Amino acid sequence: MQLALLGLGLIGGSLGLALKAAGSDWTITGWDRDPEAAPAALARGAIDHVAASAVEAVREADLVLLSIPVTAMHDLLAELGPHLKPGAVVTDVASTKAAVTGWARAVLPSGIHFVGGHPMAGTEHSGITHARPGMFRGAVYVLTPDADTPQEALAPLEELVSRVGAHAVRMTPETHDAHVAAVSHLPFLLSTLLVRRTTTDPAWPEAKRLAATGYQSTSRLASGNEAMYRGICLTNAEQIRPWLLAMARDLEDLAGHLEDAAYLDDLFTGAKQARDAWNAEFEQARENRGIMQP
Amino acid sequence: MQLALLGLGLIGGSLGLALKAAGSDWTITGWDRDPEAAPAALARGAIDHVAASAVEAVREADLVLLSIPVTAMHDLLAELGPHLKPGAVVTDVASTKAAVTGWARAVLPSGIHFVGGHPMAGTEHSGITHARPGMFRGAVYVLTPDADTPQEALAPLEELVSRVGAHAVRMTPETHDAHVAAVSHLPFLLSTLLVRRTTTDPAWPEAKRLAATGYQSTSRLASGNEAMYRGICLTNAEQIRPWLLAMARDLEDLAGHLEDAAYLDDLFTGAKQARDAWNAEFEQARENRGIMQP
Repeated sequence: MQLALLGLGLIGGSLGLALKAAGSDWTITGWDRDPEAAPAALARGAIDHVAASAVEAVREADLVLLSIPVTAMHDLLAELGPHLKPGAVVTDVASTKAAVTGWARAVLPSGIHFVGGHPMAGTEHSGITHARPGMFRGAVYVLTPDADTPQEALAPLEELVSRVGAHAVRMTPETHDAHVAAVSHLPFLLSTLLVRRTTTDPAWPEAKRLAATGYQSTSRLASGNEAMYRGICLTNAEQIRPWLLAMARDLEDLAGHLEDAAYLDDLFTGAKQARDAWNAEFEQARENRGIMQP
Repeated sequence: MQLALLGLGLIGGSLGLALKAAGSDWTITGWDRDPEAAPAALARGAIDHVAASAVEAVREADLVLLSIPVTAMHDLLAELGPHLKPGAVVTDVASTKAAVTGWARAVLPSGIHFVGGHPMAGTEHSGITHARPGMFRGAVYVLTPDADTPQEALAPLEELVSRVGAHAVRMTPETHDAHVAAVSHLPFLLSTLLVRRTTTDPAWPEAKRLAATGYQSTSRLASGNEAMYRGICLTNAEQIRPWLLAMARDLEDLAGHLEDAAYLDDLFTGAKQARDAWNAEFEQARENRGIMQP
């Protein structure tokens, strides 16, 4: 299997490390827009070869994986299209799936199979230096084939998901985008707005001394990659907007009930039960997949 | 030094463990409303003696520390008042300071010194089983003496803060409550509302499969103690309300700019810089206090 890995940041680099750790029969050719990233990925053992260009990386590839900002996806797909091997499978790891899937349909030649993907893993850090082979162990890895996707196009992707220790879950791009608006995009937007609101307050220089591990957890996602976040908002605005407006109403509602003990009891008891239940399921699911946390 | 430790949950239990780990010259008598908690604290080595009642625990105490829900504070202070040793110092670890300080002034006899306290540490778990001696190492521990507090009343508290490995910071109860509304109360309320909003959505049973470590961090505080959170809202509503309303406006504003690349760039770049800067300071401060994380 010849894999072209385009984009060697946190996710692309971690995928390369995980695949190389799983076996040596896949050959990985890497490329990144940043000329320093591919040599660094080679030095870390995440790829086997450095390509001089994206086009050179994909010429012989059976599987092409794009791990680049969603805003760069359309143009790179269009550039690569004419140079792909007939029958090649193209996938991506962007955080939204409907826009990318539409662009791939529009610009890739017939005979090329595009299947979107999204590993539900990451950290707030960016770049190859933070990549680690255990990043995807026990994680859900969404694949978004359509009704026309042949099994032979899915097979190498399912093999990839399995090799990195993840668990494939199939859904449509639209369903994926609706779900991640709630469980991923809303959290990072809340985290970001919390940080902007608190750190721009005149009292922050003194108040920040009292910020501790609670603030640290809740603000963690605000340290994430700004280009990724911007691309998510730009390509999933319709799904995200209702969540933001609903949260705004929730905050106003709570502001009117801060001295209402019964309301507060319901709120805190219900949220604690729901969060404890989800967290236990999440930890158990990772364990059940036979995986130690890295 | 005779210390009465009233309330042997996560924070009270951890204080006992930390003090006993620091030396054996303080004698700690413990009491908890839950009759199972004090024997468990004794078995874990967090206290030296179990008192049969709160009143019995404080009779001989030089220092009385209340680690109980803020909503129970007024009545316990009033109950203990007549039984305290003349010259005794009373402190608490409640998450808000103005209300408790007012109650203490109103109900404690003259000759008793009340100095509020608040260690800026904890976890989302509750109870003596989750207590650990390293909980306060490197943490800020707020003390809220007033202008009349004599140095001999502050001395045993400063000794306590030092013994548990924390760093004392003095401020008024009102300043404390204003700061924690931003850096502690707003985060746990956002976390709680995120969980209520997402988990009550009809799509949650499917969407929750995609929730991963980002959701886990942002929702963590929703698993915190509901009685504590209720007490915080009830005693700090005036400070919290403006933050909730400001966040509601921020969410509406963002909802109107989800396809505005320049707005998004400013938001994400600014928040990332601010959060990275705070986080680096926070980690460095803990290290500078000469402390390894537990």
